[in-house]
Amino acid sequence: MLLSAPPAPGSVGIVAPQRVSFDTPLPLLSGVSLERYELVYETYGRLNAAKSNAVLVCHALNAAHHVAGYYADALNNIGWWDNLIGPGKPLDTERFFVIGVNNIGGCHGSTGPASVNPATGQPYGADFPVVTVEDWVAAQARLADHLGIERFAAVIGGSLGAMQAIQWTLGFPQRIGHAVVIAAAPKLSAQNIAFNEVARQAIMTDPDFHGGNYYARGVVPKRGLRLARMIGHITYLSDDAMMEKFGRMLRGDGLAFNFDVEFQVESYLRHQGEKFAEYFDANTYLRITKALDYFDPAARTGGDLSAAFAHAQASYLVISFTSDWRFSPARSREIVKALLDNRLNVTYAEIESLHGHDAFLMDDREYHELLRAYFAGIAVDAEPVRGGTGTP
Amino acid sequence: MLLSAPPAPGSVGIVAPQRVSFDTPLPLLSGVSLERYELVYETYGRLNAAKSNAVLVCHALNAAHHVAGYYADALNNIGWWDNLIGPGKPLDTERFFVIGVNNIGGCHGSTGPASVNPATGQPYGADFPVVTVEDWVAAQARLADHLGIERFAAVIGGSLGAMQAIQWTLGFPQRIGHAVVIAAAPKLSAQNIAFNEVARQAIMTDPDFHGGNYYARGVVPKRGLRLARMIGHITYLSDDAMMEKFGRMLRGDGLAFNFDVEFQVESYLRHQGEKFAEYFDANTYLRITKALDYFDPAARTGGDLSAAFAHAQASYLVISFTSDWRFSPARSREIVKALLDNRLNVTYAEIESLHGHDAFLMDDREYHELLRAYFAGIAVDAEPVRGGTGTP
Repeated sequence: MLLSAPPAPGSVGIVAPQRVSFDTPLPLLSGVSLERYELVYETYGRLNAAKSNAVLVCHALNAAHHVAGYYADALNNIGWWDNLIGPGKPLDTERFFVIGVNNIGGCHGSTGPASVNPATGQPYGADFPVVTVEDWVAAQARLADHLGIERFAAVIGGSLGAMQAIQWTLGFPQRIGHAVVIAAAPKLSAQNIAFNEVARQAIMTDPDFHGGNYYARGVVPKRGLRLARMIGHITYLSDDAMMEKFGRMLRGDGLAFNFDVEFQVESYLRHQGEKFAEYFDANTYLRITKALDYFDPAARTGGDLSAAFAHAQASYLVISFTSDWRFSPARSREIVKALLDNRLNVTYAEIESLHGHDAFLMDDREYHELLRAYFAGIAVDAEPVRGGTGTP
Repeated sequence: MLLSAPPAPGSVGIVAPQRVSFDTPLPLLSGVSLERYELVYETYGRLNAAKSNAVLVCHALNAAHHVAGYYADALNNIGWWDNLIGPGKPLDTERFFVIGVNNIGGCHGSTGPASVNPATGQPYGADFPVVTVEDWVAAQARLADHLGIERFAAVIGGSLGAMQAIQWTLGFPQRIGHAVVIAAAPKLSAQNIAFNEVARQAIMTDPDFHGGNYYARGVVPKRGLRLARMIGHITYLSDDAMMEKFGRMLRGDGLAFNFDVEFQVESYLRHQGEKFAEYFDANTYLRITKALDYFDPAARTGGDLSAAFAHAQASYLVISFTSDWRFSPARSREIVKALLDNRLNVTYAEIESLHGHDAFLMDDREYHELLRAYFAGIAVDAEPVRGGTGTP
């Protein structure tokens, strides 16, 4: 995008992150408390007078608070769910006040392993606690308090973000109207955990990891991050999508009989790994995969997922994608079954898609029209106040 | 197994590897020639007078010539396909003369990257050529010549071994009666190549790899080998098999909130990785995965797999396993379709199994009875000569 380009139609336009500090300790599921922490967030649209039109967007592994629009000093840094969110888009910022937030433990501005530990004056590194989906949602609730939002019209997320949407309905049943749960699973399978563990081992056995305290040494476990990202990418795409995108195409003419990049898919993976290792924090990666592994609401109800939703009150939209083998449609149906057991309102859609787990980020017509219709049906007490400010 | 234990019923008993040197250069597909090389092999049963009862067993990634029986000095070192091969077993050594061979480029005794390069007096290391399925089969054919075997009654293999069985029918159509092609694919998919590439990158970016010349430095890229093996294991097992075997079981009581081994599946993977890194050669791993990536008989016929089999004469038994997501039944059906297009004799069976790709190594009744029936139907010109020697 040229710097002089006008805003794309439907874009929320130029946005800027905001930052809030919390001094009340946040008790974590591990038993540890985070004494002080900051959250970085962005908002799009206007909070209405009744403060009833807020929608929280929860991020998955590789994303953060920059969900829509672009930055004045980086016009091509477009939010990760910009195709969904904006004026007139399926999640319409003319009606809704949309919030993106970077979770604690992250590496995009909220307090995380690279932040300075007030107890030592040094980066937390290995000392940053293991955080969970429950912890993230608890921190998001404090952000809502700060913004004066008693109740979200909706919380939406894909993959790990969807787990947060689920957790909102369990941890704060009165504070959420609708949960939009996309490409989710009620808990990881052994295979899911296994992939995460290989990624963690790649990072932790990188000689530049130094037990998590690499910041002071001026190194980054890039080898491990590259491998972690490559493994991740394979699980985000379907076999068919990879076959369509790369097939067995070679970069050069004929086989090379050496170990340089040879097939296009190798080039793609190496490039993705390289990019990721440039900006993502290894300690954050470890913690986010652990949060994925741990999420299992039914663990508190003896393995009974239906019982886990006993106190939920939200309405749910659950969406899965046919070619998603990381969190297959069968995993979403487990969630739907548990919701129905509790006579909760649930709409379920299995979207035909070739794009695997990543489909939740794609601009698929059927998928986006479904979201548009669902959000259009969410009543907000009052229309947004134009020109006013919704924040206290 | 106790040292004093009697041989298990159906075992071929104590076996010993044999070794043969070849001085005639072996031209490889890469254009490079291997001037001299050795092959290590084992045989079970007796070659009959007509030399018509020989069955070659081709190995996949992590296996070699030790296919059946055990060693006098290591009674618990049992061959990798011992459950299939022996007197009275599905591949009956009372009828067949069975040969296992370690492929060139391997790390179990045949000439490979750790062998001394006669040109330098040092281990080949990075200089060992990239070898292919075609090269392996060409070397196996020379072993057959050495043993006086003009024609194999059958060539059998699973996974990469099955690709060698296919290649026998293409490269040496008159020298093979039956090809037993188990858990195969006619070529790797982009996803298959992607997993191999991640494993290779894990090895090649290990600081102990030293560009493949680690032997002289007294180190081994164990971190990379561990990761490669962990990734491999995930693809060998099905999601369901992992769920049945490990589920979300923890090693300890409750969540640990740290990065030590926590879930049972993590423990399993780390153990498998550790074991593998103790004995497997990294340069061999690189070359075997490359041979997998390269195998694509239809590449020589413009992508037309049916045309690739135009000169094949063998009869085929093709077996796939329902839960194999590495080489799914659909991939086997591609092979079957191409064989039928050529009016070749083909028997195809899709075996119900939870065990994923690894099912081909398992002692599954339906699977083994099928192999038993198939081998029983293979005519050999004469019964094996008891007490005589079949080798020239």
